[in-house]
Amino acid sequence: MNYNAISALFTVLLSVLIRLQVSGQVHTEAVTDSGAIFPKGKRAPTSTFTGVVWVQQLIEPDSAFNIPVGYVTFEPGARSYWHSHAGGQVLLALDGIGYYQEQGKPIQILKKGDAVKCPPNVPHWHGASPTVGFRQVAITPNTATGRVTWMKPVTDQEYNNVRK
Amino acid sequence: MNYNAISALFTVLLSVLIRLQVSGQVHTEAVTDSGAIFPKGKRAPTSTFTGVVWVQQLIEPDSAFNIPVGYVTFEPGARSYWHSHAGGQVLLALDGIGYYQEQGKPIQILKKGDAVKCPPNVPHWHGASPTVGFRQVAITPNTATGRVTWMKPVTDQEYNNVRK
Repeated sequence: MNYNAISALFTVLLSVLIRLQVSGQVHTEAVTDSGAIFPKGKRAPTSTFTGVVWVQQLIEPDSAFNIPVGYVTFEPGARSYWHSHAGGQVLLALDGIGYYQEQGKPIQILKKGDAVKCPPNVPHWHGASPTVGFRQVAITPNTATGRVTWMKPVTDQEYNNVRK
Repeated sequence: MNYNAISALFTVLLSVLIRLQVSGQVHTEAVTDSGAIFPKGKRAPTSTFTGVVWVQQLIEPDSAFNIPVGYVTFEPGARSYWHSHAGGQVLLALDGIGYYQEQGKPIQILKKGDAVKCPPNVPHWHGASPTVGFRQVAITPNTATGRVTWMKPVTDQEYNNVRK
């Protein structure tokens, strides 16, 4: 094998290596994107959410299905206002890092695979961590008793009061 | 640069290339695994499911939350028996390729991001495609009227009757 042949092989190997590295980057993004199972939907109203939040309604309530189901994407730092549900709510954590707090209790960290029951009429809020976004499914049962009662915003002090 | 130096560099590049390829494979598996948001749970009973099916109960119904929520993993070819829900059911397709059929209608293909309402008392079945598994969340509202009525197995002829 002469010098030119080795040099040519070297060049080919180098280009394959670069291609693999690029495709490796694409892979990493795909892993991140794979959390977005449902369409991101529309921007949530700034009158009840702080920061950038997206809501896609998956199931609209009707006479047979009294359970609205929504898919909510919180960008880092975003969160709901304090609120309560007369019929309670179920949260399924799909991706990212979420915060969930019931009034009078410490903030609870939510991760992919967590399922939470927000009890009826208990004021609470949920959102993303400051650095990592959060994706959840929210199921609201017993809508006959009322769907949601909105309260005041979650202050920065409340939001940052995470037990380390 | 002499022959030995080039040869050594060549060896280093080759080993990096192999490592990257191996890590590429790990990435690919991670993408597949990333669909498994919740724990796989327990094997579903063979008296009401055909093939390998796993069920993880995410929300157990109680007095406040009358909506059992389950996470179901169908391995390729697996499906439920025909059944109906007196209060209906909501299916959220999280990953893979699913089949869903209501009595008298063609099989509907479900993909990541689809949301389906199974109407109350309509016989239906759901499962995975023959070659790709399927992961879903199932929400059963109105359990006061009854949770599920099981019927006969889905035959191979019924299962393979997919409109191409």
